[in-house]
Amino acid sequence: MIINFGILGAGRISKIHCHNIYNNQRAKILKIYDPNTKLSKRLARTYKAHATEHDLDIFTDSNIHAVVVGSSTPTHIKYLDLANKYNKDIYCEKPIHLNLKIVDACLKRLKNHKNKIQIGFHRRFDSNHLLLKNKIIQKKFGNIEQINISSRDSSLPPISYLKVSGGIFKDMTIHDLDILRWLLNDEIVEVYAQGAAMIDKKIKTVPDFDTATMILKSKKGILCQLSNSRRFSGGFDQRIEVYCNEGNLNLNNVKKSSIQAINNKEEIHDIYPYSFIERYKESYVRAIDYFIDCIKNNKKPSPGLIDGRNSLAIAEALTESAKKSKSIKVNLNDY
Amino acid sequence: MIINFGILGAGRISKIHCHNIYNNQRAKILKIYDPNTKLSKRLARTYKAHATEHDLDIFTDSNIHAVVVGSSTPTHIKYLDLANKYNKDIYCEKPIHLNLKIVDACLKRLKNHKNKIQIGFHRRFDSNHLLLKNKIIQKKFGNIEQINISSRDSSLPPISYLKVSGGIFKDMTIHDLDILRWLLNDEIVEVYAQGAAMIDKKIKTVPDFDTATMILKSKKGILCQLSNSRRFSGGFDQRIEVYCNEGNLNLNNVKKSSIQAINNKEEIHDIYPYSFIERYKESYVRAIDYFIDCIKNNKKPSPGLIDGRNSLAIAEALTESAKKSKSIKVNLNDY
Amino acid sequence: MIINFGILGAGRISKIHCHNIYNNQRAKILKIYDPNTKLSKRLARTYKAHATEHDLDIFTDSNIHAVVVGSSTPTHIKYLDLANKYNKDIYCEKPIHLNLKIVDACLKRLKNHKNKIQIGFHRRFDSNHLLLKNKIIQKKFGNIEQINISSRDSSLPPISYLKVSGGIFKDMTIHDLDILRWLLNDEIVEVYAQGAAMIDKKIKTVPDFDTATMILKSKKGILCQLSNSRRFSGGFDQRIEVYCNEGNLNLNNVKKSSIQAINNKEEIHDIYPYSFIERYKESYVRAIDYFIDCIKNNKKPSPGLIDGRNSLAIAEALTESAKKSKSIKVNLNDY
Amino acid sequence: MIINFGILGAGRISKIHCHNIYNNQRAKILKIYDPNTKLSKRLARTYKAHATEHDLDIFTDSNIHAVVVGSSTPTHIKYLDLANKYNKDIYCEKPIHLNLKIVDACLKRLKNHKNKIQIGFHRRFDSNHLLLKNKIIQKKFGNIEQINISSRDSSLPPISYLKVSGGIFKDMTIHDLDILRWLLNDEIVEVYAQGAAMIDKKIKTVPDFDTATMILKSKKGILCQLSNSRRFSGGFDQRIEVYCNEGNLNLNNVKKSSIQAINNKEEIHDIYPYSFIERYKESYVRAIDYFIDCIKNNKKPSPGLIDGRNSLAIAEALTESAKKSKSIKVNLNDY
Repeated sequence: MIINFGILGAGRISKIHCHNIYNNQRAKILKIYDPNTKLSKRLARTYKAHATEHDLDIFTDSNIHAVVVGSSTPTHIKYLDLANKYNKDIYCEKPIHLNLKIVDACLKRLKNHKNKIQIGFHRRFDSNHLLLKNKIIQKKFGNIEQINISSRDSSLPPISYLKVSGGIFKDMTIHDLDILRWLLNDEIVEVYAQGAAMIDKKIKTVPDFDTATMILKSKKGILCQLSNSRRFSGGFDQRIEVYCNEGNLNLNNVKKSSIQAINNKEEIHDIYPYSFIERYKESYVRAIDYFIDCIKNNKKPSPGLIDGRNSLAIAEALTESAKKSKSIKVNLNDY
Repeated sequence: MIINFGILGAGRISKIHCHNIYNNQRAKILKIYDPNTKLSKRLARTYKAHATEHDLDIFTDSNIHAVVVGSSTPTHIKYLDLANKYNKDIYCEKPIHLNLKIVDACLKRLKNHKNKIQIGFHRRFDSNHLLLKNKIIQKKFGNIEQINISSRDSSLPPISYLKVSGGIFKDMTIHDLDILRWLLNDEIVEVYAQGAAMIDKKIKTVPDFDTATMILKSKKGILCQLSNSRRFSGGFDQRIEVYCNEGNLNLNNVKKSSIQAINNKEEIHDIYPYSFIERYKESYVRAIDYFIDCIKNNKKPSPGLIDGRNSLAIAEALTESAKKSKSIKVNLNDY
Repeated sequence: MIINFGILGAGRISKIHCHNIYNNQRAKILKIYDPNTKLSKRLARTYKAHATEHDLDIFTDSNIHAVVVGSSTPTHIKYLDLANKYNKDIYCEKPIHLNLKIVDACLKRLKNHKNKIQIGFHRRFDSNHLLLKNKIIQKKFGNIEQINISSRDSSLPPISYLKVSGGIFKDMTIHDLDILRWLLNDEIVEVYAQGAAMIDKKIKTVPDFDTATMILKSKKGILCQLSNSRRFSGGFDQRIEVYCNEGNLNLNNVKKSSIQAINNKEEIHDIYPYSFIERYKESYVRAIDYFIDCIKNNKKPSPGLIDGRNSLAIAEALTESAKKSKSIKVNLNDY
Repeated sequence: MIINFGILGAGRISKIHCHNIYNNQRAKILKIYDPNTKLSKRLARTYKAHATEHDLDIFTDSNIHAVVVGSSTPTHIKYLDLANKYNKDIYCEKPIHLNLKIVDACLKRLKNHKNKIQIGFHRRFDSNHLLLKNKIIQKKFGNIEQINISSRDSSLPPISYLKVSGGIFKDMTIHDLDILRWLLNDEIVEVYAQGAAMIDKKIKTVPDFDTATMILKSKKGILCQLSNSRRFSGGFDQRIEVYCNEGNLNLNNVKKSSIQAINNKEEIHDIYPYSFIERYKESYVRAIDYFIDCIKNNKKPSPGLIDGRNSLAIAEALTESAKKSKSIKVNLNDY
C-alpha cells in the first residue's frame, strides 16, 4: 500500500519533505496547503499534487493517510489536535509550541491518541549520529560519564526571524537537547546557561543571545556541556564528544571534500557544509522513510510528543537560567 | 522534452544506470534488453519499462532517443555501430573492447558519427575528482610535475571473472589511466610495469597479476606512478597525489563516518567504503545527468570514443611491459 | 656569566628542573636541599651539585644567584619571602599556596620586590601554546569570542594525594586558568562550576570531584568553558578551542607517532602521550631558559606573582560554586 | 667508562654529531680535525675539545676509543682503513664512496675487521621509523606485499653541490634504499628508474635529475615504488606505505604543530618541517647513543658496512636504469 500524504505549509522545510516523499517509492503526495496559495500551487505543480485552499480539507480527505506539518510554529498544536480527531498519522516539525504550558495542555488532550505522531528532530536520523548511538548502545566503551555538544550555524538570521523564534534555546539549542536526551537515555534535571551578544549587539533588543554556553545535569548525575553560536566562520559546526569510562566517542564535523592541498605555508582542507540542509540532506530522507515504516508496520514513532515536550522544558529552563544567571530545575513531566 | 532511454544489459551496472535514469526528472526508461529475459523482466518491472526480447528492437524504436550499454564487453562494438546506424545517442560502458585493433577499426567506421557517444568512465564525475580537476585548471599551484595514483579493490574477484577480464591493466588500471589522462591533459607515450601474484598464486594460471606497479611518461615529460592491487584490507582505496611546482593537491580516501573513537590503546576511525558502488554512487548519477545535458544542449560528451581508445592503448602497452619487463611505447593515434 | 642555582625540594618536579638546568649551557646547579637527605644526595650526585642539610644555606650562599622551588606547596610562601630577603631570583612552582588570603598577605609583603619571580606555569612555554598565543596576538582571525579548554589526566591519583591537593580546581584546573587568562588577556569575573564523582565514589569522602565542568565570564563579557577529568582513556587530553569573529584556532592533542595503521575494520592511530611529562617535556626546558634570560637581561618574568594569585582566586571561586551550585564572583585584586 | 671521541670533519653534519656526543653522559670529544682549521677550532671551542692539525693524530691517540667521520665523501675509505689499522671504532657518514668497485675493494680489505663500524643511516633511529619496523617485526598485519616510499627535499641544492653529489640516486635515494632494505628484510635484485628535470633544466648539464620515480623488485618478488624530488613546496616530505596481506602501515609526514585554524574558506594546518635536521633531530641523538651502546656492550652495530655497500649497489643500478631507460639487475655481493 502506498501512503498518501497531505502537506501543511509550503515553505523551506515543506519543500524538503515534499522532495523526499515524492522520491520515496512507498509514498505519494495528494494535497498541499499554505495560506500563501502561490507557494502551495508552485509546490503542488513540482510534485504532481493538488494545492488546496483549506487546511481542513487535508484532514477530512479519506484518501489521505498521513500529514506533514511544516507550517509556522503557532499552527502546530491545532494540526496535532486535528490529526488526532481525524485519525491521521502526523509528522510534525519542532517545536510543538514555544510555551510549555500550552504543550502540556495539548499532551493531556492527546493522552490516548491512536494515530502515529513523530516530531521532526531529523538529526537522530543522520548516519553519523546513528552510528554514534549504536556504539553507545553496544557499550563498546562502557558507561557514559560526560557528553559535550557544540553547534554553530553559519550566520546570524535576520532580527525579524529572531523576534518570532522563541530565543536561541528554543530555536537552536532544542536540536542539541533532543540529541543529548537520546544519547544519554536519561532526563536532564538541572541546567545553568550564560548567553552573550558577540556577533551583533542589536540582538539584545529582541531580547536574545547569539552565543550561549550551558551546563546540564542528568538524573543519573552525568554532567554535560553545550556550546552554541549563531555564526561559525568555517560553515556549519556540529560536533559531539561522548566520554565513557573506557574510552571516548567523538562525532566530528563533515568535511566538504577529501581534497588536501599543500603549499609553501600550510596544509589546507576544504571546510564544512554551510548549512543543515547540506549536512543533513540524507537525515530528512531517512526521517520520513522511518515515519512511513512506522505507519506500515504499526510501530510507535520515536521521537514522539514526549520528546518534543521535554526538550522544550529544558529549553525553557535554560532561557530562565540565562536571564537570572543561576541554576534552574527542569520541569519534568513523564506522561 | 523527456529523453527516452533503451537499456542493453540487465546486470549490476545496468541496474545502477536504470535507478539513476528513473530518478532523473529529465529522463525515462522505455525498453530493456538482456539475453537473460528473467533479468530484463525483473528490471523492467522495477523501473516501469518494457522488457524486449530483441536488442535490435531498441535501436529501431523511434521513441527511443538514447541507449545505455551495460552488456558484456564483446557486445560493445556491435552496439556502437548500431547506435551510429540508427542515430541513437549512446552511453557505453568501458572498455570498448579488449583488443586495440578492433577498437581502431570501429573508430575508423564511426569517424563521422553524428550521434553523441559517451564512454562510462564515471570517476570523472565524482565530486572529489571534479574539485581536483578544477583546482588543476585554475593553476592554483602552478604546473603539474608528477601524478601518482593508488587504486586497490576490496577483494580478489573469482578466477572465472579474471579469465574474461582482459587482465588487471585493461580491467582495473584502465580507470586510473582515464583519470590520469584527464588530469594531465596530456598523452602517455611510454610505460613500464611490473606485476606480481601476491594474493593468490593461482592467478598466474590465468595468466594475470593481482598486484601491479607502473611508471608512465607523458608527451611533456611528466613522470607518473600507478599502484594497483586487487585487495585492500581497509576496504576500497583510491587516492591521487598531484605535485605541482608551487604545491600539492591530494585526493584522499573517503571515510565511512566522521566518528572518532579513542580507547586506552589507540584512536580509531571508521574505514573506507568497501566498493566503487558505495564510494562512487553519486558519480554515476552525475555521469548520466551530464549525458542527458549533452543530448538536450547538443554538446559533444567527454569522455568520448578517443578516451576509451587511448586508455586501452596504454593498458595494452602496460600488459606488454609487465610481460617483457621492459619499457614500451604507447600506440598513440589522435583521431 | 653562568647563573648558579640552588634547588629546594628533590621530588619529581625538581628532578625535571635539575635535568634542564644541568643541560643549559648558561646555568649550573650549586646546591640542593630536601628534608629527605637521601633524595637530595641522590639528585646532587647526578647533577654534580652539593646536597645541603639546611634550606637557609641556599639563600645565604652568595655564589647562588637564583633558586627553584619544587618543594611541597606549604613551603612556597616561606621561600618567596626568603628569596625576597636575600635577593635571590626565584622560579616557584604553582600553586603559591592553597589559601588566597595567605597569598594576598604575601603579595602585600613582596609589593616592592626587586628580585625576579616566575611562577611555574610551564604550559605557556609549550611550542603549540606559544604558536596559538602568537596567532591570537596577530589577530589573524579578529577578536576572541569564546575559549573552550579540555584537560583530562590519564588516571586518578591516589586518595592520599588528593587529600592534600586542595581539590580538583586548585590542583588541576589552575593550569587551565592560567592559560585561559593568558590567551584572553582579560580577567575572569564570574564563574559557575559543577563537579561529579564519576571515576571513584570514594573521592566524595575527601571531599573532592574527579570530573568538573565550568562556565567562566571575563570582564569583557567573553564566555568560556572548561572541562576537566582525572582520567582520560586515551592518555593525556589537553585541547583548546578559540573562537574569533573571523575564524577559529584549535590546539589539538599531540599524537604519539605519525603512524597510521589500516586493517579490515578500522583506521588506527597511536594515541596521545600518557602524562604532562611526556607532552610538555620541552616546555619545562623553555620555561627555565626563559627565566635565565630574564635574569641575564634584567626583564620581569611572566607568569609572575599576580598570575599565580589570580588563577588561585578563580580556582577558589570555582570550588565555592561547585559546592553551592550557583554563580560566584571572583575576588579580583589588581596589584 | 666514558667513550672518548675523535671527530673528522667540522662541517654541518659533524656539528650535529658533536652536539649530541657532548650532551651524551657516556661520551666525550677529545679531538677534532678539519683541513679548514678555522672550522675545527671553532667547533673545538664550543665542545671543549682540542683542534688537531693532522687527521692521523686522531687515530694514533691512545686515549681516543672511537671516531666519527663527517668529512667529505672521498675521505671515507681512507678513514675506514685507518680505523681498522689503529683499531678505533668508527661511525662513518654515508655514502662510503660513490664508486661501488672501490667500496668492494675496501670491504675485502676490512673483511676481518675487529673494530665496530656503523654507517650513518640515521633515519633507522627515528622514533616513527622504529615504531614502523617494530610493527612489521610483530607481523601485526601479516606479510609485506608492497612498500612505497616518497621523499622530497624542501629545495634544489646549488649546482656546485650537485656536481660532486654522485647524482640523485647516490646522494638522496640512498637513504630510502637503506630504509627499504631494512623494512623489507630482503635484498633488491632488479630496478627500473625514470628521471626528469622538472625544477631546473640546468640540472641536465651536471648531468643529473631533480625528480625520479622507481620500481624495485626484491628477491622474494615484492614490488616497491620510490618517488623522489629535490623540491617539496610543503617543506620536507618523507612518507612510507607498507601494504601487508592483512592491513597497511603508513608513516605519514610530521606536522609542525597541533594547531588547526578554520576560516571562512578552509581548514588550515601548519606544515611539515623544512629539513631533515628539524625532522630527524632525535634520530641523530639515538644513532650516536646506539653506537656508544654497541661499543660499551661489545655488539656489532647495524647498519654496517654491508648496508652501505648494498644501498650503493642499488643506487648504481638505478643510475644506469635511468640513463638507459631499461631494467637493471643489482650487483649483489653478500659478504
